[in-house]
Amino acid sequence: MFNTIGIISRPRREDLVGVVPGLLKWLKERNIRALCDAETSSCLAAPEHVRTRQQLAEESDLLLVLGGDGTLLAAARAAAPRGVPILPVNLGSLGFLTSFTRDELYPALEETLAGRHAVSERVMLRVEHHQGGDTQHLHLALNDAVINKGALARMIELELLIDAHFVCRYRADGLIVSSPTGSTAYSLSAGGPIMHPGVEAFLLTPICPHTLSDRPIVVQDSARIEVRLLKKSAAVYLTMDGQTGTQVEASDRIVISKAERRLKLIQPPQKNYFEILRNTLKWGES
Amino acid sequence: MFNTIGIISRPRREDLVGVVPGLLKWLKERNIRALCDAETSSCLAAPEHVRTRQQLAEESDLLLVLGGDGTLLAAARAAAPRGVPILPVNLGSLGFLTSFTRDELYPALEETLAGRHAVSERVMLRVEHHQGGDTQHLHLALNDAVINKGALARMIELELLIDAHFVCRYRADGLIVSSPTGSTAYSLSAGGPIMHPGVEAFLLTPICPHTLSDRPIVVQDSARIEVRLLKKSAAVYLTMDGQTGTQVEASDRIVISKAERRLKLIQPPQKNYFEILRNTLKWGES
Amino acid sequence: MFNTIGIISRPRREDLVGVVPGLLKWLKERNIRALCDAETSSCLAAPEHVRTRQQLAEESDLLLVLGGDGTLLAAARAAAPRGVPILPVNLGSLGFLTSFTRDELYPALEETLAGRHAVSERVMLRVEHHQGGDTQHLHLALNDAVINKGALARMIELELLIDAHFVCRYRADGLIVSSPTGSTAYSLSAGGPIMHPGVEAFLLTPICPHTLSDRPIVVQDSARIEVRLLKKSAAVYLTMDGQTGTQVEASDRIVISKAERRLKLIQPPQKNYFEILRNTLKWGES
Amino acid sequence: MFNTIGIISRPRREDLVGVVPGLLKWLKERNIRALCDAETSSCLAAPEHVRTRQQLAEESDLLLVLGGDGTLLAAARAAAPRGVPILPVNLGSLGFLTSFTRDELYPALEETLAGRHAVSERVMLRVEHHQGGDTQHLHLALNDAVINKGALARMIELELLIDAHFVCRYRADGLIVSSPTGSTAYSLSAGGPIMHPGVEAFLLTPICPHTLSDRPIVVQDSARIEVRLLKKSAAVYLTMDGQTGTQVEASDRIVISKAERRLKLIQPPQKNYFEILRNTLKWGES
Repeated sequence: MFNTIGIISRPRREDLVGVVPGLLKWLKERNIRALCDAETSSCLAAPEHVRTRQQLAEESDLLLVLGGDGTLLAAARAAAPRGVPILPVNLGSLGFLTSFTRDELYPALEETLAGRHAVSERVMLRVEHHQGGDTQHLHLALNDAVINKGALARMIELELLIDAHFVCRYRADGLIVSSPTGSTAYSLSAGGPIMHPGVEAFLLTPICPHTLSDRPIVVQDSARIEVRLLKKSAAVYLTMDGQTGTQVEASDRIVISKAERRLKLIQPPQKNYFEILRNTLKWGES
Repeated sequence: MFNTIGIISRPRREDLVGVVPGLLKWLKERNIRALCDAETSSCLAAPEHVRTRQQLAEESDLLLVLGGDGTLLAAARAAAPRGVPILPVNLGSLGFLTSFTRDELYPALEETLAGRHAVSERVMLRVEHHQGGDTQHLHLALNDAVINKGALARMIELELLIDAHFVCRYRADGLIVSSPTGSTAYSLSAGGPIMHPGVEAFLLTPICPHTLSDRPIVVQDSARIEVRLLKKSAAVYLTMDGQTGTQVEASDRIVISKAERRLKLIQPPQKNYFEILRNTLKWGES
Repeated sequence: MFNTIGIISRPRREDLVGVVPGLLKWLKERNIRALCDAETSSCLAAPEHVRTRQQLAEESDLLLVLGGDGTLLAAARAAAPRGVPILPVNLGSLGFLTSFTRDELYPALEETLAGRHAVSERVMLRVEHHQGGDTQHLHLALNDAVINKGALARMIELELLIDAHFVCRYRADGLIVSSPTGSTAYSLSAGGPIMHPGVEAFLLTPICPHTLSDRPIVVQDSARIEVRLLKKSAAVYLTMDGQTGTQVEASDRIVISKAERRLKLIQPPQKNYFEILRNTLKWGES
Repeated sequence: MFNTIGIISRPRREDLVGVVPGLLKWLKERNIRALCDAETSSCLAAPEHVRTRQQLAEESDLLLVLGGDGTLLAAARAAAPRGVPILPVNLGSLGFLTSFTRDELYPALEETLAGRHAVSERVMLRVEHHQGGDTQHLHLALNDAVINKGALARMIELELLIDAHFVCRYRADGLIVSSPTGSTAYSLSAGGPIMHPGVEAFLLTPICPHTLSDRPIVVQDSARIEVRLLKKSAAVYLTMDGQTGTQVEASDRIVISKAERRLKLIQPPQKNYFEILRNTLKWGES
């Protein structure tokens, strides 16, 4: 079933040296083909042919991510549209998404290869950036799409429409459109609630709203969310998962909806969502 | 289809006198049987045989509620389990739930009798209050079930379980378990987000949590939410929709889940949820 | 200088037994007269003549408080108007106010008797409760005076005046009037800021305000704060430091100002306010 | 007493044309010398000799500001260190600081010239920006000094010291150091309390803190507040009053204290701070 495994890494070189060579040997012994990204390959004595993230997602049956939540977010945007599941192993401190530890690498691989793995399907955001005329850019995001102002401006003015109905205007530093997965990321810092990944909803959290009464809004994930930039005093940006971004002009429209395919995230079967939350947020204990 | 209409009222007598007699005449002309609760009947010259809310819900094909959100909440708990739709007409200031105005009473009735009405189905909370041993009390709520402390105590300690998994402990004034409908009620005052009624989720909002990091949580409405009172320093209460309440003892368990049947709430077809929200909260305008 | 020391205790008996007899012997050896409250005396083989907190405050040159923040709050209300300093020793877990540990008891006593102690002067709240006509009750509070509703009501309506000027109306669960010392107590749970004890200000924090835009307000501590209960749907209470309370009627007025005398709180000279805060709130570390 | 009046304007030209010529005539009739900035002069048929804001502050006994809060903030930074009072007249919508309306222009001038004006003294922030080595830039701010990240970064790490004591670390979008005057500006959007201008304190409000427990902090305005940038992932800026800004590097230190001189802001004597607040925030009404 998993004949080819792509490896995507992002921790510091010194961590990888202790993991990757042994891992490649382990996979070879089991007749599994391993493909590496540049980072992974860089710690090998005899570097392999290196693939881009896109190539790895296309040629692999499983992506093994060695890194933290940041590495996983980038891998997710490549993996989800191709239906490739991700096995995330955290070489550093615990993350919300990367919940296998280094010690669990081989047990987790064995369980996964034996088909005994648990998969958490995560909704992805499909983000269309319409720039005047016919230009349209398409992005994916696992956590969130954020429209926000640069450091030197004090406020932008946005208009929110849901399923083509006007909802409200924001005078704020920006607006976060978050998936349930992203509810524990930037949205949480901006005052949003925690949303279980099983809830079929999106979260709209304003950043520093100037109208005191603006609150986070939860809408069905079947909604078509449209954000228009009404007025800008300085540079405004659209960023996906805090990683890729483009500038937004006053005539642009950002349209966000549920992506066609979900991310298949392999997770420890015995670990409950709220347990991961408690450990990561140091939260909920008396 | 709507052969019998039950009328439930709660505005001040002087408002009713101008509405109820004409309404009864209007219904009689259309061969529709009208049943009244005590409040409605009290403004008639020749009082009708009075029904309780429960009887009205059992004998009617439609409940006409003349009043504000408070009257509707009480009517909803009687109507929902029997599948009777409610047509809410607000004689006073606009409510979140009672969105027909007095001027719209007859047009709304005509549309409804002609089957051209829009129905918003609202999830109700099923609240089981388990008191030591086998005693169990069952309640319904449209907005919320609240476990909170009396005025003289400073804190209670609660434990939250979802689908039998431990989630967290709260040291707080209390906890609000809210439906999407209830997200604009007490939960909003306690810092919760606004949740569109179509979202299939419940909202758990702590009241004045002593742990700074406690945030509202959104979970699927298929969840079985269990709240246990760990420690109490003074009287603790469970209240449904802020209207009916009972005392909670340290050994009690409160189990909240989705009620089997939804409330059928007739709404103006042209009015969007966010439009009602903007009008009622004076919200979202620039 | 400190010829007589009054001892006020509140921890569990088993903790006291190990401390009090040795402490009395230690004081006797230094020719210092020790006076005990009932709790302190209860752990002695030959009980002393027991004093009330008021008597202790009147007859002593120093009050030694063995307990947590709760015990200290009660002692403060007796000590402050008489100008008696308090040396607080925490037999249990760390508190905001009781920052000497059990191990520091004798070193702290020695430093204090030698006049090398640091005193943090804390503003107290003077709370006048005017009940219709001439009746007036006077209270003191170190942390806060809270006007709030009972568990079964959903809202009360309050009017706030500062120096006889109308400020605003609250539709809320209640209102907390807090000293800087109290900013880390109930006000913090209700969303208030942290205020350094040196700031000459009071903090007005609404509890679950129904108007979304109500925010905590900081005013000079020379202000005369008046709170009127406009409407009540059920029992409303005024509580001081979460410990003593009385019922409030619709015609009552609560007037809060700075008490004439401050509490003299002995503190470890080497411990900074923010260090205590970090330790107690598990706060501020990366 | 007020022999020379400097005029600083910022509203749209069409508003000024109707005000400035009449104003200059009015002043001339009273033998008062009028000096204009470029904006003011631009609406005159025969343009006057134009002064910079700095020159106006040096040569005038009174600055008349025609504009909104933005114009006033810029004028305040020039006027305060020279002790020149400002009479602010709002030609547009009401501001927190510019509380005389256009209709009140001549009555306010008359009262001021007759010495019957009320002056609200406002603390200014003195902001030192220490860049590696000996370079030091000095700024003033009436509302706030803000250290924050650009749009494409997700977080910065700051360290806060007060009077050379470590307070806490922030992982956040930024930090606002606000005067009482600035408490109703950016700090309010970021979740800070409202602080009466008479309170002798500064307000430290984190922007989107990643640690859930970070709360606004209120400290005495005699404090020496030092902010260090620990880690930066992208451009970080220091901005004063949202108007002037410079880039901050990882080795920089920002030191904020009370400026030597306060701003003298002329205000309508009959208008109370909370009344202005209610009108401007649409706040506090039932």
